[in-house]
This record gives sequence, structure tokens and C-alpha cells, in this order.
Amino acid sequence: MTDLPEMASGMLGDATQGVPGAHIRDVFKRYGEAHSAGDVDAILALFADDAVVRDPANAPEHRGKSALRAFFEAGIEASGGPIAMTLEGNVRIAGNEGAAAYIVRTINSSPVFRVDTLDVMTFNEQGLIAQMIAYWGPENFQQEG
Amino acid sequence: MTDLPEMASGMLGDATQGVPGAHIRDVFKRYGEAHSAGDVDAILALFADDAVVRDPANAPEHRGKSALRAFFEAGIEASGGPIAMTLEGNVRIAGNEGAAAYIVRTINSSPVFRVDTLDVMTFNEQGLIAQMIAYWGPENFQQEG
Repeated sequence: MTDLPEMASGMLGDATQGVPGAHIRDVFKRYGEAHSAGDVDAILALFADDAVVRDPANAPEHRGKSALRAFFEAGIEASGGPIAMTLEGNVRIAGNEGAAAYIVRTINSSPVFRVDTLDVMTFNEQGLIAQMIAYWGPENFQQEG
Repeated sequence: MTDLPEMASGMLGDATQGVPGAHIRDVFKRYGEAHSAGDVDAILALFADDAVVRDPANAPEHRGKSALRAFFEAGIEASGGPIAMTLEGNVRIAGNEGAAAYIVRTINSSPVFRVDTLDVMTFNEQGLIAQMIAYWGPENFQQEG
């Protein structure tokens, strides 16, 4: 990690505490990979038992692993199967929270849609996702083929 | 806007209500431009009078325009002047919330630092920023020159 300039050390406070940044980056990568594989068990393994998800941010929340399982399975079914989900840019890390943009493509639909999404994840002390809020909406869809 | 596939219309609910997406995108663009110009008045004009900012997300909040003015002025001073702040990728929009990644470069510092940041803004009915949370930390700094 780069030595920080004075402006950063003054603003950051205790930002260096908490869940290791390398772990947060890895979870974001694995979250995209698990979606791309359509592997709901692998998705759920990243979450705490009582995790809360709002996906998108202005939709009702899903709380707890059985609700999350139903939500992710329904998403895969509605997309005609797995989606391709890749990070766009670096994961931003503030203490025990991470945020990153994704580009999602439906694989099995015709036409193919690209959806620009962005997830903010809050991690618990065990490094599991305690809360995830996903930002995307109708204006983030583009038809590709 | 693209006609939405079934998966989207099922998940999105009332996501098409609220502040126009074009306005949210414009505020994200203007926020970066105002920072790049070092124009604190232009930054503050985007915020509601009682707006709350956490920048970064794990720092104490700043509430209200006079607190925000002091915060943004201190940031510019600590950076040796204006920073260059450009969007990375599209703005994601979920109802009255927008989220987007930025790439920030210190202009007047030696060495130059690149900082990857990401802001989530919540808008009020007047289209002003009611809350902004910025995600970045020590691991998002890169020394460039």
C-alpha cells in the first residue's frame, strides 16, 4: 500500500481498522464469479446467516439465508440461467465496508442485456457480508444483441 | 431507455418513480466538475441545507451547509488546491438514489496521487443531495509521479 499523503491521513481516521481489504476485494470477486457460475450455494457462503439484502436499493429487503436463497434463485430463473457478472474498476474500501461497480450480462436471454450495477457490502467481524445494497435501475439496462 | 426484460420489471417495483435519472446523472457530473474547479459554492449548491455527508463512510458525519463548507474547504486545502475528479463508468440509479465510481487525482501535490472513490447520493424531492456517503480508504491510493 502506498504511503498516504497528509490529506488522507487527516481524513481517514480509523479507516485502517477492521476486515482486511484483501478479503473484501476477494469477496467482491467471488460474488461475481458465483453469479456467473449460477452457483447459489457459493453466493450464500459469502453472507452471514442474518444478512440483509436490498437489490435494488429501493426494493423491499430480503433478510436471512432462506430468503436470500429464494431471491437469488428467482433472479437466475428470471434471467434464463446464470448471468455474467464482472467488476468494473477497483473495489473501494472504507473500514468494514466495500463498494464496487459491476457489469452484468444476461447469457441465455435473447436479446442480450447489459446491466450496470453497483454493490455496497458491509462486513461483520467474521468477514461475512452482513448487508448488501445494490444500485441499479431501468436506466442501467442496454440491449446488446 | 431500453424496453426492460421480464426479469427487470419483476425486480424493479417502483424504481421508475422519483427524481429523474437524467438529473441524478447530471449532479454526479457537476459534483466532479465543481471539485475539479475547486468551486466550493458550486459543490454546496448541489446539496440540501440539512444534508449529511460521510466521506469516507467510516468517518464522522458532517451535517448542514456550514459544516459541509468547512469540510470541503479543508479537503481542498489539504490537497494543495483543487483535485481532478472524473466519473469511472456510468451512474447507477435506483429510484431517488444514485451511485457511481470516481477517479480522483491530486493536481498540485508532489507526488501526484490517484484515489479511487465511489459516492452514493440520496436525493430529496427537490433534486438536491440529502445524503452522500463516499467509499474510499488507504488501499485506494496509488502514487503516480
